[in-house]
Amino acid sequence: AMDGAPPPTSPTGLSAYVAVSQLLGLTLLATTGAWLGRYRGGVAWHSPLQFNAHPLCMVLGMVFLQGDALLVYRVFRHEAKRSTKALHGLLHGLALVIALVGIIAIFESHRTKGIPNMYSLHSWCGMAAFVLYLLQWLLGCGFFLFPSASFSLRGQYKPQHIFFGIALFILSITSCLLGITEMLLFKISDSYSHFVPEGILANTLGVLLVAFGLVVCYVLTREEWKRLPLAEEMALSMDFKTLTEGESPGG
Amino acid sequence: AMDGAPPPTSPTGLSAYVAVSQLLGLTLLATTGAWLGRYRGGVAWHSPLQFNAHPLCMVLGMVFLQGDALLVYRVFRHEAKRSTKALHGLLHGLALVIALVGIIAIFESHRTKGIPNMYSLHSWCGMAAFVLYLLQWLLGCGFFLFPSASFSLRGQYKPQHIFFGIALFILSITSCLLGITEMLLFKISDSYSHFVPEGILANTLGVLLVAFGLVVCYVLTREEWKRLPLAEEMALSMDFKTLTEGESPGG
Repeated sequence: AMDGAPPPTSPTGLSAYVAVSQLLGLTLLATTGAWLGRYRGGVAWHSPLQFNAHPLCMVLGMVFLQGDALLVYRVFRHEAKRSTKALHGLLHGLALVIALVGIIAIFESHRTKGIPNMYSLHSWCGMAAFVLYLLQWLLGCGFFLFPSASFSLRGQYKPQHIFFGIALFILSITSCLLGITEMLLFKISDSYSHFVPEGILANTLGVLLVAFGLVVCYVLTREEWKRLPLAEEMALSMDFKTLTEGESPGG
Repeated sequence: AMDGAPPPTSPTGLSAYVAVSQLLGLTLLATTGAWLGRYRGGVAWHSPLQFNAHPLCMVLGMVFLQGDALLVYRVFRHEAKRSTKALHGLLHGLALVIALVGIIAIFESHRTKGIPNMYSLHSWCGMAAFVLYLLQWLLGCGFFLFPSASFSLRGQYKPQHIFFGIALFILSITSCLLGITEMLLFKISDSYSHFVPEGILANTLGVLLVAFGLVVCYVLTREEWKRLPLAEEMALSMDFKTLTEGESPGG
């Protein structure tokens, strides 16, 4: 592998799947906006509509941006690892900030209306997803961005980082589906079972969330689509290993 | 790999993770039973309690048995592929039958009470999980159990079978969480926000379902724990390939 130039094109199919994921992502943002705008009075901060900022921020941050952050190693497979890694960390950081705004929105909205916090399964799953996502981001920065961690430590942590990264993405989507179900049963419990348009639209949003998660996870887990080290990275890491661990480049 | 005897022991850690998964599985069955028995009047068929047969059957079939069916290639890694495969298919078949009973229970219960079917996000996700799970089982039987499919066809389908198998297991767990949320908001909507014991118990069931899914998926996706072909299987498949496809054993 060290003698070849980096492949000039992406593997067949990858671009198509990435395109579908982005179409699904934009569609689910539009569907969230349509639900909140058309049936729930829109979104605002210092108003009773502050509640609605919660679903919008969580879908944007914990699903769309988190999902896209996971995809950068597949999409920018021919860019330098260093810049791709920075983009991965930045997108997750942006997702965390937007999710935090969404969490503040629901806590402030609850306080205004005198509703208790953290009693529902949605809140338990959602808060677990957010706290563990923040922890995963901090661990990721510690292990991969700062030059402190050794090659062997990074190598040991990397499979865990990938597994829990995908698990937290799935838990985030699950929390959104729980939130949709809660919101429908709070707001339209009497008409939901009569197939009213708002119910159908919100269910469709749930299906779009599942579809987005499915396509992103398919792209991430497909063996042939994993990012291969570029030729210069191979050479560099071998040199570095030789220098630091005394291994021969061929070992 | 062809010259070595099959490894006599399982990889370090695998047995511990499998034991934890089974403890979690039994705990989530007990928690489902405790919720239905202590707070929902128990389970019966020709009675208003027919509703309660639905969550019990779905957790047993679509989560516990489906999860255990996924684990058989890790647990029985030193048994012949043929018998492990048969057990995998049988457990999934049993899961499907029990899930079908659970679906009949909820449709009959709805008919008795005049409640419409298939309007909620829970029903959409759950029905999609069941129908696709049945389809996956039929495809699995067609490709892997009957001697009709060629080696190369099986090899092409296998990664898809594994990806969608895990995806459907996760969608099944998600559907259970949606069902728990629905049931709590139908039955204890007034007291749920006051942290009543039934709400805490049902939320805990949700957390146990997530934990079971997490441990099973961790065992399934860990690279070092994947089932390796036994020595005699390697030899056999090479012979078979040579006979049927004209490939040399070394190719």
